[in-house]
This record gives sequence, C-alpha cells and structure tokens, in this order.
Amino acid sequence: MDATEFKEFAKSMIDYIGHYLETIRERRVLSTVQPGYLRPLIPDSAPEKPEKWQNIMEDIERVIMPGVTHWHSPRFHAYFPTANSYPALVADMLSDAIACIGFSWIASPACTELEVVMLDWLGKMIALPKEFLACSGGKGGGVIQGTASEATLVALLGAKARIIEKIKKENPEISDNDIVSKLVAYASEQAHSSVERAGLLGGVCFRCLPTDNEYKLRGSTLEEAIQEDRNKGLLPFYVVATLGTTSVCSFDSLEEIGLVCQKEDIWLHVDAAYAGSAFICPEYRYLMNGIQYADSFNFNPHKWLLVTFDCSTMWLKNPEYIVNAFNVDPLYLKHDQQGAVPDYRHWQIPLGRRFRSLKLWFVMRIYGIENLQAHIRNQIAHAHEFADYIRSDSRFEIVGEVIMGLVCFRLKGSNEINEKLYKNINANGKIHLVPSRIKDLYFLRFAICSRFTQSPDISFSWHEIKHLATEVIASYKK
Amino acid sequence: MDATEFKEFAKSMIDYIGHYLETIRERRVLSTVQPGYLRPLIPDSAPEKPEKWQNIMEDIERVIMPGVTHWHSPRFHAYFPTANSYPALVADMLSDAIACIGFSWIASPACTELEVVMLDWLGKMIALPKEFLACSGGKGGGVIQGTASEATLVALLGAKARIIEKIKKENPEISDNDIVSKLVAYASEQAHSSVERAGLLGGVCFRCLPTDNEYKLRGSTLEEAIQEDRNKGLLPFYVVATLGTTSVCSFDSLEEIGLVCQKEDIWLHVDAAYAGSAFICPEYRYLMNGIQYADSFNFNPHKWLLVTFDCSTMWLKNPEYIVNAFNVDPLYLKHDQQGAVPDYRHWQIPLGRRFRSLKLWFVMRIYGIENLQAHIRNQIAHAHEFADYIRSDSRFEIVGEVIMGLVCFRLKGSNEINEKLYKNINANGKIHLVPSRIKDLYFLRFAICSRFTQSPDISFSWHEIKHLATEVIASYKK
Repeated sequence: MDATEFKEFAKSMIDYIGHYLETIRERRVLSTVQPGYLRPLIPDSAPEKPEKWQNIMEDIERVIMPGVTHWHSPRFHAYFPTANSYPALVADMLSDAIACIGFSWIASPACTELEVVMLDWLGKMIALPKEFLACSGGKGGGVIQGTASEATLVALLGAKARIIEKIKKENPEISDNDIVSKLVAYASEQAHSSVERAGLLGGVCFRCLPTDNEYKLRGSTLEEAIQEDRNKGLLPFYVVATLGTTSVCSFDSLEEIGLVCQKEDIWLHVDAAYAGSAFICPEYRYLMNGIQYADSFNFNPHKWLLVTFDCSTMWLKNPEYIVNAFNVDPLYLKHDQQGAVPDYRHWQIPLGRRFRSLKLWFVMRIYGIENLQAHIRNQIAHAHEFADYIRSDSRFEIVGEVIMGLVCFRLKGSNEINEKLYKNINANGKIHLVPSRIKDLYFLRFAICSRFTQSPDISFSWHEIKHLATEVIASYKK
Repeated sequence: MDATEFKEFAKSMIDYIGHYLETIRERRVLSTVQPGYLRPLIPDSAPEKPEKWQNIMEDIERVIMPGVTHWHSPRFHAYFPTANSYPALVADMLSDAIACIGFSWIASPACTELEVVMLDWLGKMIALPKEFLACSGGKGGGVIQGTASEATLVALLGAKARIIEKIKKENPEISDNDIVSKLVAYASEQAHSSVERAGLLGGVCFRCLPTDNEYKLRGSTLEEAIQEDRNKGLLPFYVVATLGTTSVCSFDSLEEIGLVCQKEDIWLHVDAAYAGSAFICPEYRYLMNGIQYADSFNFNPHKWLLVTFDCSTMWLKNPEYIVNAFNVDPLYLKHDQQGAVPDYRHWQIPLGRRFRSLKLWFVMRIYGIENLQAHIRNQIAHAHEFADYIRSDSRFEIVGEVIMGLVCFRLKGSNEINEKLYKNINANGKIHLVPSRIKDLYFLRFAICSRFTQSPDISFSWHEIKHLATEVIASYKK
C-alpha cells in the first residue's frame, strides 16, 4: 500500500468514523451475537495474496459491527465511561505515524518532554499540590500509565521497595523474604478489584477494610487495623484510598486516612480513576482534601476527560523508589543525558511506550479548560436528572449518594426482583447497564457515559426502565 | 469539535502523515535538541478557551518534530525495528472510534472473538504446534499483550501459580511464602533486561546462565544449574529461552532446553520478541525446533511484522494457571457467557484493553502472507548486504552470526576506539545506532529497521561509518 492508496483508505475510514459516531444512537447498544459468532464469517487462515482495502471497509459492517457493544451510545450506562473524542483520535493518528518507542529520553525527546509538561498542565488543572509537579523543580512529577491497575501496582512496588530499604537500614541481617512475608497493605472493601489484584501480583497481603454507612473508609478503621497488625508483628506499608469507588462512587475520607498514613509513615496511594476528572471543576475539589498526605495520585483521563484509552495519569512526590526498583539497564539503553530528564521506562511495568501525551495536548487545546469543565458539569447534571426520575417514582430507591455521573438505584423489595429487572433491561437491549452488590444489597448502576448524551436520552432510558419495572412487578404479582 | 470539523482536521493530518513518511529519509534521523528544549516552546498551562485545530497542525513542526528521533527513517539502525504501516494506522483509527474496553466478552464480543481468530491465523502462519491454537479445540490459545515484558511476567506468574499448586498438593502445610522463597527461574545471560525485571516484579530469584561461544544457552548448562539448585533445596520452576537476543540476535538451543524442561517438569517460556516474525518464512523455522516443549510462546508483530505498537502476541498451551491466578471478579464484571469464551482480562496485567486485533486483521489482509514474507526476506537481505560491506574492509570484524536483520560489528582493536566511533556516528547524526557489550567486548549494532530501506540506504550508512572510522583511526595514530 503506497501513500496515495493510504490516503484514500484513511479518508474513507474518517468518513465512516464520523458517520458511525454521529448516528451511534440509532444502533442497538448491546450486541445480540452468541459466543463464536465471528469465526464462521471469515476465512480460517490469512490470505496468501494481498486484498483490496475496499474489501476490508465492506467487512466492518458485516463482521465487526454485529459484535460491537456501543460504548459511546447515549444508551450505554454500564461500568464507567471510557473516553472518545475527535481531537484524541487525530492525536493518536500522529502518534502512530511517528511510532517512536519512548523508553528513554534519547529515543525521542519530544515523547518524554511533552509528557512531563502535559502532566504539569493537567496537575495544575486539578490543583494538585506542587510537590507532585515537575515544574516545581523538586523530585516530583507525572507519568502516563496504561491503566489504573498498573498505577496501583507500580505504587505498591515503590512502597515495597521503600519499606524494605527502611527495615534493612535498621536491621541489616534480615532477608528480603522475611520482610515481604510480613508486609500488609490496606484498602476499603469498596476498592476496585484491581487493587486486590495488585496485591496478588506483588505477592503481598492486602486487607480490605469495612466502610461506614456512606461506603467510605474512615481513618479510625484504618488506624485500628494497623495497630492490630503491628501487634501481630506485621509491617503495614501501603494504603490505597479510593475517590469514587466503582460500585457506588463513594469517596474515602482522604483527610483522615492521610493523617493516619503520615503518623504511621505508610505510603498513601490515591486511586481516583473515574472521579479524578471532576477535580478540574473547583466545586468538587473538597473531595480531595487531604491530597497533601499522598505519595502517589492517579486518575484516568481515558475515562471521563475525553482522552481515548489508554491514558492513566499518575503523579509521584518521589519517583526514586520506583525508578530504583525497576532499573536493570543494559548498555544499549544507556545515553548521555541520563539523570537530566526522566527515562520513563523506569516508571512503569512495560519497557516500550507510545507517544500518548499528544492526546492530552490535542484534547486540552481543542476543548480548552472551560469546555472540559462544561463536559463534566453537563454529565453530572444528567445524573441528577436521572436521579430525579427515580425519586419521582415511589417504587424505586436510590443507593448511596449521587455526587458524580453515577446513579445507583433499585426497586424497593427483594434482590430477586432487581435481578429480574436487570436481566430484562439487557435482554431488551435498548439500553445497557450492569448491577452491583454491597454486602447483601443488590442494585443497578446507571452511569452517564456518552459525550453525546442529552436530556431526551435520559428520558428515553428512564422510560425503558420504568416500563420494564412495571412488567417485572406485574409478573411477581401473578 | 463537530463531525465536519473532525473530518477536515483528520484529513489534514492524513496528508501530513503521508508526506512525513514518504519524505522521512530527508530528515536528520537523530534529534539535536537538549534536555528541557520543549517547555519554553509552549504555554505553562492549558488554555482556558478552545483553540483552532489549525494552530495544532502548525505546532507539529515547531514543537514536536525538532525533538523526534525518526524511528522509521532508513538511517535509523538502533535497537530493533518497531513497526509502522499504513493498514495498521487505519485499523487503529477504527479501534479508537469504537473505543470499547474489551475486558470481557460481553463488553464487545467482536473485540474478543477477532483476537481469538487472528491469533489462530498468526499461529498458523508461523507453524505453531496446534496445542497453542484455539481452533484445535483444546485449552490453548493466544492473546495480545502490550509488550514482551508483560508476556514474560504473565508467564512467570502462571509458572509460579503452577508450582505453588503442585508443592501444596504434595505438602499441604507449607506456606506460599516458604515456597516463593525457594523459587528459582533461569534465562541466558543474553536474555532481555525485561526478563530479569520480571523476576524483580514477581519477587523471585532469576539466574542468568552463561552461553556458549555462539552466545546460545545450551541444555547442559541449564541442566547443571537446575541440579545445583535442587541440591541446595531450591525449587526450579521457570525457564525463559530467547530466540533472537537483543545484543547479538543469537538463538538459544530450544530443542536441548525443551528436553531439560520436560524432564524436570519446569514451565518453558519462549521469548522470540524480535525474531519470531521471521518464522512466517519456512526457511527460518529450524530456529524454533523444540517449540513443542514450550508452555508459552511470545513474539512482537509490533517489531517486525508491520503491526504498529502495541501488539505483542502470546500463546499458551494451558492458560488456566494464569486465569486462576488473576481472577478477582466482582459482580459488575460477570456476565452470562463466562467460560464459553475467554475473558481476556484474566490473561494480562491491566484490566482494560484496546481493540488491537483489528491491526493484525488489516495488516495480514492488505499485505497478504506473500508480501509479509517478502518484507522479512528483504530486510534480511539488506543485513547481509551491510555485512558484506563490513567484510570487504579488513579494519572491521563481525561479532556473532548474521541470521536476521541485525549485524554486530566492530573495528578490530580496543573497545575505546569503538566507543569513539560510536560517539562520532551519533554526534554526526546522519545515521543512528546503539552499542552493546558482551563480557568485555564492546561492539556496534546495525539493525535494519525501516520498511522504506533500500540498497542505496545501506550503501549510504556504510559510507558514513567507513568515513568516520577512517577519521577515528587517524586521530588515534596522531
């Protein structure tokens, strides 16, 4: 394929994409295919001879689209949003064309340097303490990880390196393995599944602590757990506080947790994967009070800030523990400028990395802070719109508090009837959402996901839910 | 930005990209900027108001390009190639537009199913044993990881889960921690730095074993190390064999190593990150003899098979150990079709994942097997062309064997004179390469990287090296 053909193919794809996104509302949000649907639709091995690009364009609707769950449809209310925007899409095209692997500064200085500055821009936008910003001239700075899972794991590995160093300084004859066997990390029982997984991967014990009535982890609960473990001879070393939990979007008491971590000298990581984007609006920053106590902070612009996946931004006050833990440099990766600038390969699990800061740059410039704020406020307003519908119907109740773009709700009554409602909603396929459960309470999650969402979409989704609820209730009365 | 503006912006970017790639040879391959060059070129915070897309287009040449090391220039001979092709670029556009997060089948069936089938296509193209293929109907199958580093780590975690299960079955009262403290993994001392790093991350001991005169790890060396460690009461559990090492592109004796692993019941992972792509050509498959003994196999189409980063393909004979080790499922991720199809989130470190199999599909179809083979053969032919230049000049010597697209060479004489030559080559900036060192031998690596490479480019690079060598030798004679 030469450049001329590429331009034809790419421009045809641009037109397809524009049309797909602008008319996405008309497609059934949830795919109806059965497992194994795709294999019979295509040959069972790669073609020997080259095919025309036109054949591929035709196969998108025939092979791919029937099996797509349309995450950017205003009818999609499952999980949390994942970002999709035109400027991010164009930025990724440039990233793919330059296609550098930015594992060191010299491998493409622009790739590292734009990332350093974009993490400063973004850090300022959410009013992070200056100790987290590279422009403050201290040790701190930001990095783009692939996902929040990786950020949680990287912070855990940094915390692990820090405690091992500290214990060995006091007690040089103790083995690493003896230390690791005593390590214990903490998070709320509402923390994301990836937090528990980071413990599994990092080979340390993770304790999931109970929350209060508002699903928040409190300082006193953490303090008690730490004392209990210290009394057993264990070594508390890492705490993850969640701002915006996946189940109900609750916010741990960061201020209280931070004070405990400071007093106990424990690494505090803040996971604000979804809700962090809202901190670009000053009125939501009260939720991050206590951020000054954190060692590391992470949120996903690829969730709610219109930067297409993957772009999980993480800031560290002192990256040295992680850099040293990860550094295994062979000669072919060394260069003359080491030390003057970050070599981001030491800040992450993989070695290679794409030029992802271009997406942040394009999105922040094409939207401007004011339109990004408008996007967040608009989506939260739609959540309140939906919550008002729920409150207007006495058969329903809200679970938790509506603070961001997520509304948790249920039919008053048994879990069983709510499970039935959930199944019928997705079987009907006009809208898509997922359930959750806290302790014994089963409920439905309604997330505002698409940037195309408008008030009539909320009304549409509400009427679908209301209609199916009436049917489900009737079927139980029979 | 609406769809109309998006189309203008994106099409303008397409034209820019086509021009950039077709004229890349004319740019200085190595950036001349100094650390910190970028920050003064842009504002110190994000704009309040939206900007025009035309401003961004103008800034690409002003801000970004001066700091780009042009990995796709035919003058770029550093590291190993990273892929860049037109079909992959267009596929990524579609992936960004659909922007699903394929952590489970239901989250977008097409995303999972195309990946299953593409890994079969690709596995057949390199003649992997059928136990690795999903279409064989057994447990085996493939998955796209981000990087080979992640594949090595994932396989290590699978191997760790397997040995823990096995030991506990024989000896139920032993603690996980006691087992882990005795685990030992093996690789050649020429294995990639990410292999050692996987050991650090996974918290297990990694032994780097010496190679023979051709830089290959032999079965007898491995066997001895295992016996030595068993005698010490340790638990050998994981071996990484490398096909195509980074330093000299040597190939471990897979057949010998495989027999040892089979006899000793140890997980064998094969890292063919770079060289694996060549196995699409039957004449190179002798290098993977012994693959039938492997538990997991990995190579990077994003290196040498024209699929833009990231796309690191991994096959497992039995993914169960990994799936079970990683499974921490909350309710909001469960769905009705679990078990019938892979939920790829259990096969990898992160939770989220892009629709990357589109890149494989587009590339295999637009090139066809015959043109992909032609690409590999062509690049290897260029390496031999360069090796012939080296051999034609008695001041130089070749290090190792030229099998793939990498030529290692040096000036006969001291390491110092070779370090000087290396520094002068990169300071001149007409071509770019990196050095390596094995034991006390310092040498230069010349990799064929760009898909635009033609014979005159090889001649150009050779004349640059030859000319600078003459200067360096003269300066030493003074």
